[in-house]
Amino acid sequence: MRANDPALRSWVPVPEGNDFPIQNLPFGIFRTKNRNPRVGVAIGDFVLDLAAVAEFGYFDSLTLDKKVFSQNTLNAFIATGQQNWRKVRDRVSELLDEKSQALQGQKSARQNCLIPMSDVEMLMPIHVPDYTDFYSSIDHATNMGKMFRDPANALLPNWKHIPVGYHGRASSICVSGTSFHRPKGQLKPADAEVPTFGPTKLLDFELETAFVIGKATQLGDSVTTAEAQDHIFGMVLFNDWSARDIQSWEYVPLGPFLSKNFCSVASPWIVTMDALEPFRVEGYKQEPKVLPYLEYSGNKNIDINLEVLIRTPDGTENSICRSNYKYMYWTMEQQLAHHTVNGCNINVGDMMASGTISGPEEGSFGSMMEITWRGTKPLKMKDGSERKFINDGDAVIIRGYAEKNGVRIGFGDCDSTVLPAK
Amino acid sequence: MRANDPALRSWVPVPEGNDFPIQNLPFGIFRTKNRNPRVGVAIGDFVLDLAAVAEFGYFDSLTLDKKVFSQNTLNAFIATGQQNWRKVRDRVSELLDEKSQALQGQKSARQNCLIPMSDVEMLMPIHVPDYTDFYSSIDHATNMGKMFRDPANALLPNWKHIPVGYHGRASSICVSGTSFHRPKGQLKPADAEVPTFGPTKLLDFELETAFVIGKATQLGDSVTTAEAQDHIFGMVLFNDWSARDIQSWEYVPLGPFLSKNFCSVASPWIVTMDALEPFRVEGYKQEPKVLPYLEYSGNKNIDINLEVLIRTPDGTENSICRSNYKYMYWTMEQQLAHHTVNGCNINVGDMMASGTISGPEEGSFGSMMEITWRGTKPLKMKDGSERKFINDGDAVIIRGYAEKNGVRIGFGDCDSTVLPAK
Repeated sequence: MRANDPALRSWVPVPEGNDFPIQNLPFGIFRTKNRNPRVGVAIGDFVLDLAAVAEFGYFDSLTLDKKVFSQNTLNAFIATGQQNWRKVRDRVSELLDEKSQALQGQKSARQNCLIPMSDVEMLMPIHVPDYTDFYSSIDHATNMGKMFRDPANALLPNWKHIPVGYHGRASSICVSGTSFHRPKGQLKPADAEVPTFGPTKLLDFELETAFVIGKATQLGDSVTTAEAQDHIFGMVLFNDWSARDIQSWEYVPLGPFLSKNFCSVASPWIVTMDALEPFRVEGYKQEPKVLPYLEYSGNKNIDINLEVLIRTPDGTENSICRSNYKYMYWTMEQQLAHHTVNGCNINVGDMMASGTISGPEEGSFGSMMEITWRGTKPLKMKDGSERKFINDGDAVIIRGYAEKNGVRIGFGDCDSTVLPAK
Repeated sequence: MRANDPALRSWVPVPEGNDFPIQNLPFGIFRTKNRNPRVGVAIGDFVLDLAAVAEFGYFDSLTLDKKVFSQNTLNAFIATGQQNWRKVRDRVSELLDEKSQALQGQKSARQNCLIPMSDVEMLMPIHVPDYTDFYSSIDHATNMGKMFRDPANALLPNWKHIPVGYHGRASSICVSGTSFHRPKGQLKPADAEVPTFGPTKLLDFELETAFVIGKATQLGDSVTTAEAQDHIFGMVLFNDWSARDIQSWEYVPLGPFLSKNFCSVASPWIVTMDALEPFRVEGYKQEPKVLPYLEYSGNKNIDINLEVLIRTPDGTENSICRSNYKYMYWTMEQQLAHHTVNGCNINVGDMMASGTISGPEEGSFGSMMEITWRGTKPLKMKDGSERKFINDGDAVIIRGYAEKNGVRIGFGDCDSTVLPAK
């Protein structure tokens, strides 16, 4: 894929360590003062306004309705199909290439199309028709099993056979930058007779990623692991905020509900699977052998460095976890094959999250529950305070990037702040 | 409410036992040959075409954009607000009143606005942004607990404190008349070492109703039990098809997933809460006392007779269950207050289903699992065959109506057919 060539350089300055070099070109929805939302591509510290690029005629060689770039979600663009995602990304790559004067050399067009990131507001990039959350990190599932069930038999019997997942709430998925109020609900400590009502005392994040469906199916159709990549547009970072005390009281027998549906947060730029392709790595050896519909070939894990930070109210950032997407036991391809093997239909924009991504060692755990081991090992913050869970006024930031051959493909921040309960 | 007056009669003939007298006036989306989908109201064996009614000027007294009646879902109409639902229903009631000549006396308008039901195809009445399924029938929860857990402690500890619910799949909710293929998935009999893959052997229906959200909230807002009725547009019958063998293997710890998301079926007419208001009855006495946010006053249950039939491949109908919506332990108002107490936002068109509605006695159980008690008491069909669960070629029909003072408010059929696995 031409756009992935590590030798490419853009005439738009891309500082060292920036998430958005010319090899990335993720898609998002942005707004500037007095203008409607539109589709943008991140390049360095700028946003390339694709609606403007189209208006200036730079997409005239593509057979694509320009209107898809003047929408308040990416769904219409994504629905034009994988060939068009690739054509647009390649064309943008050409236009931003330092060797091209097409846009670089046209001052008026350049000024209209390229907007400093500091001048834009990023919006939720897609309308999410349905949201699914998996539970596919073996280290996370093992940690939870050790804490809440039997340390000797931490994984449940179905875990290595099924990419366990559940349906979540689409309405409360917000874009990075969101603040939300600490949720209230029913809490029942183990030693209490009856539940009480109040703000959660155990507010937690979950370090996740999510993939975005790019191609729909009809009810009754299934997607094989081999076909899955044709149905996935790209990925975002994802924080599946969780209230652990609400969760433990409510979740038997039908799963998490109010403990999860008060707010989930996605990073604003959808990094395409095409941009992530060079970072594929071998997956887990799956023992016992999976059923045939879950078998796959090739390298389907992806080496994406992940980090979680707490920004305390004084504004300092505290790194509390370094994990990696490659620790996933189940791949996206397996998750999607499983999700559709019964004929469940999928739609463009559906989000499917990974579940908490923990690594094998302390320091790589993807939730406060695991990091502080149920609060028994509090974390020290730079401001001198301690954290067992997340406090009012704290922000949680997830960052992530893949890096190889001098190319760094990043996601931008997934950042959200906890306000006191209403 | 004028439109509920039992003395009203329509000039459109309404046969004895028909679901759609002038006191009902449910809303749906229909299509006729060569015309786009539009909003209709059921009256007797006819559909009143509201787009045509609006074009003829009969809604000119209402301050309402006519376009809301020419949509392929009811969402735009519903989003105009409760006052407008009521104005439209009242105006339709006036137009259909035998004492009014306004439409009755205008042959051309009448012929354009009134279409025999046999000439229309009913479509899914709403776009469903999010779907939630509750578990609110005490007899159903008790039966399931007896079969799968401990007969002496059938109800889980949280059940009388929480209207337990979970998120389901919106994409696979279909309108009555749907056929779907028997789903395949992982099955693991208790005595097997590892799971196998194949079509479900334990395909079951669930007799449910669902309510439709009519007024949205913002993230962070809660709806009290007293406010809940302002947020509910109406109700449908609902079949939450379930694959019991897939369910029992997958559902720990995150709840049902592929066992439920292959197809759910809604009846095509949304009966308004206004039409159901005369049928309110007292609810369960809730012991232990619920938390204050779940308290409510007044009669909030509804007396709706429910029936389930299996139509075997020879076309004969076999009544297998008679239940009633009044058997619900948790009311809609409580469900909605619970769902939003943590700030979870709701949208117009969200569907919230009741969970299986079983009554206290045999004969009133709302699933094959309960009716045949896990298959130990097979049902005899009129064609001589037996059923433990649902066979290929069978259709399941749910019917329902409220009746009082000679007025019968019905829902129309919720009918769907099982095709062999693909």
